[in-house]
Amino acid sequence: MSPKNVAVIGLGSMGYGIAQSALRGGHKVWGRDVVEATTAKFIAEGGQASLPDYADIDVAVLVVLNAAQTEDVLFGQNGIAAQMRKGATVIACATVPPEFARDMEARAQSLGLHYLDAPISGGAVKAANGALSVMASGSADAFEGAKDVMDSIAETVFPLGYEAGAGSAMKAVNQMLAGVHIAAMAEAITFGMTQGVSPTSFIDVISKCAGTSWMLENRAPHIADGDYKPRSSVNIWPKDLGIVLDIADQAAFDAPITKTALAQYAKAVEAGLGLEDDAAVAKVYAAQAGLNLPSGTPS
Amino acid sequence: MSPKNVAVIGLGSMGYGIAQSALRGGHKVWGRDVVEATTAKFIAEGGQASLPDYADIDVAVLVVLNAAQTEDVLFGQNGIAAQMRKGATVIACATVPPEFARDMEARAQSLGLHYLDAPISGGAVKAANGALSVMASGSADAFEGAKDVMDSIAETVFPLGYEAGAGSAMKAVNQMLAGVHIAAMAEAITFGMTQGVSPTSFIDVISKCAGTSWMLENRAPHIADGDYKPRSSVNIWPKDLGIVLDIADQAAFDAPITKTALAQYAKAVEAGLGLEDDAAVAKVYAAQAGLNLPSGTPS
Repeated sequence: MSPKNVAVIGLGSMGYGIAQSALRGGHKVWGRDVVEATTAKFIAEGGQASLPDYADIDVAVLVVLNAAQTEDVLFGQNGIAAQMRKGATVIACATVPPEFARDMEARAQSLGLHYLDAPISGGAVKAANGALSVMASGSADAFEGAKDVMDSIAETVFPLGYEAGAGSAMKAVNQMLAGVHIAAMAEAITFGMTQGVSPTSFIDVISKCAGTSWMLENRAPHIADGDYKPRSSVNIWPKDLGIVLDIADQAAFDAPITKTALAQYAKAVEAGLGLEDDAAVAKVYAAQAGLNLPSGTPS
Repeated sequence: MSPKNVAVIGLGSMGYGIAQSALRGGHKVWGRDVVEATTAKFIAEGGQASLPDYADIDVAVLVVLNAAQTEDVLFGQNGIAAQMRKGATVIACATVPPEFARDMEARAQSLGLHYLDAPISGGAVKAANGALSVMASGSADAFEGAKDVMDSIAETVFPLGYEAGAGSAMKAVNQMLAGVHIAAMAEAITFGMTQGVSPTSFIDVISKCAGTSWMLENRAPHIADGDYKPRSSVNIWPKDLGIVLDIADQAAFDAPITKTALAQYAKAVEAGLGLEDDAAVAKVYAAQAGLNLPSGTPS
């Protein structure tokens, strides 16, 4: 491993963990966030205090919210792409349409940059532990340029081909299922309550049966514990499932179950639950059916 | 273990395996099916050749299709409940409404019978291997009377309380999720194909990510292999999700994701796919989107 000069742009729950993991991996890391206090916190933990000179950056990791922010960071006013040296690498982690990823790759390559389409999966805890899963596609040079940083931040890199877009396509598929499974778990756990099945009993039994899912095992305990502190918020899903459905629409693909799940998240946002943990979509069902979900133990 | 006289009524894919497992467990087993050839096949494998005298049966295991068949076997013309001795046990395995299970228990108890509400999960292979999961509720006497047979047929018995209905409630919750997850997998694997994600790549990556489910890991390979030989058929789902939605309706519970999944299975049945493996719900999506699913290797 050779230590790299790394800029991590976007220090949200995923980006902050990625920046920490890169630091632990022995890289020089500049963390940047629109929230100055977050940038300052990262500097206090060992991040570089100076503003990054992008001409010296080997790898820029973009952990922003969506396609618009990705484009803005790279090619907007003061966009970093034009400031980076030829042969440097961009790792783009946001969930974006595959078409957009291909466009970003082409524009980055025209400036001599390598572009890795690298959506991430795994949640904030895995990000902090350098244990993310990355669905990566891009040129051999992009994989090579990203390698030392990827080794620090990811446990598993799925290599999905030598063209941007494939990583984003797989991420869209994963988000479709993850979003549907959380809402389906919420539908089932509250349905069970109408039949005398407690959330605790639901978890004990269903997690060992054919009805289980990764998301059920991860999120159902939040409902049983009445704990809606956001690890990943309701607001993520109208965004991510919206991207998924936009991609589906463009392919004239009808995704009725995803649409129905999205509608439940939209109801959760309307009910003011957007900033709660995404398991709070269960509150939409509970309200409709007049159920009392478990409340958290006062801490 | 004391060997019991066991009648297994209904020798479909689950019932046949249960009968085999009971036989292997050392019990005397009478297998009964409306298809005479199936009954004869079981006799050839070691089942009792005589017609059962229900007065001598210790445990009757009902592995029929639904509530109507369960009621008919027990209390219809020549119903076995009136023929069984006091203190004998009925193990009822069909997916039925909890209310129905409570009614059956009351009527069985009025004749001096023990009634175990015992829906099963795990599929035909686990049934044949004596490795089912059973969601069981009923009186202590019913659990006691069923024990020796349960030890032969089940790997896991979830004890869900001392009243019939709780087992059926949990089963309904499990079926809701299992049915939704198969349809969601079909939606996602075909959506992926529109974006260049092959079914094989889908399985390789998503099964290790947050989008996975038990059903995805079990059923997606059928699609990748183009193998729709029915382990569990499409026809199961309009039935089971129909039961789930009936129960939900009675509780004034709105289950929009389940309803949407059911509509996809209904389309599969309309398209003549009812007897194929339930993974064939993917063909509904493929037809809508003009995709060619992998075809099976000719055998």
